[in-house]
Amino acid sequence: MPRTPDEQTDYWAVIFTAQRGDGDDDAYEATAERMVELGSRMQGFLGIESTRNVEGLGITVSYWRTEDDLLAWKRVSEHVAAQVKGRSDWYSRYTTRVARVTREYSFRATEPLE
Amino acid sequence: MPRTPDEQTDYWAVIFTAQRGDGDDDAYEATAERMVELGSRMQGFLGIESTRNVEGLGITVSYWRTEDDLLAWKRVSEHVAAQVKGRSDWYSRYTTRVARVTREYSFRATEPLE
Repeated sequence: MPRTPDEQTDYWAVIFTAQRGDGDDDAYEATAERMVELGSRMQGFLGIESTRNVEGLGITVSYWRTEDDLLAWKRVSEHVAAQVKGRSDWYSRYTTRVARVTREYSFRATEPLE
Repeated sequence: MPRTPDEQTDYWAVIFTAQRGDGDDDAYEATAERMVELGSRMQGFLGIESTRNVEGLGITVSYWRTEDDLLAWKRVSEHVAAQVKGRSDWYSRYTTRVARVTREYSFRATEPLE
């Protein structure tokens, strides 16, 4: 069972926790996909992890090389428009947190679990 | 649409991204619940957010007052045992990231979405 050592790192994370309301799924999905496509082309973009349960609670974490990089993405006009739409139509609540990642470690099973 | 201002903060987050394998759901769920119960009684625990999609990709973010508080939780023996079980039985892969939260802002809809 390979485990990476606990490593010092220095990059940034944006933790976005959001509760979806019902409906408007097609427009939401299209915009969400577009934002990943657009964001991943930004300078300093390192990656994104996103998941949502059947009750509509989603957590998306995007990773950025510097704080300036994530702030630049926050201000991109098409992204700003999506944020407005998120508040008016899609989310009943959300919290965005900006955090500096200082350490990380990983595990990957050598054999797939059943 | 109330939106909180972008606020400076200073606390810590543990971002745990994990892919579940199949099976052993009862034991997994019982342990996951027990870890939330145990962890939330630790000194410096501020909160936890967790979600998992139908494909088994989960993101759990726990929040802590200081880095020492989250390190103390990492070393609690029952939690260490759960981590071992996670590697042997439950997760095909995971990454844990420790991050210092520097800013946050929230939104809550005044009227529930349909």
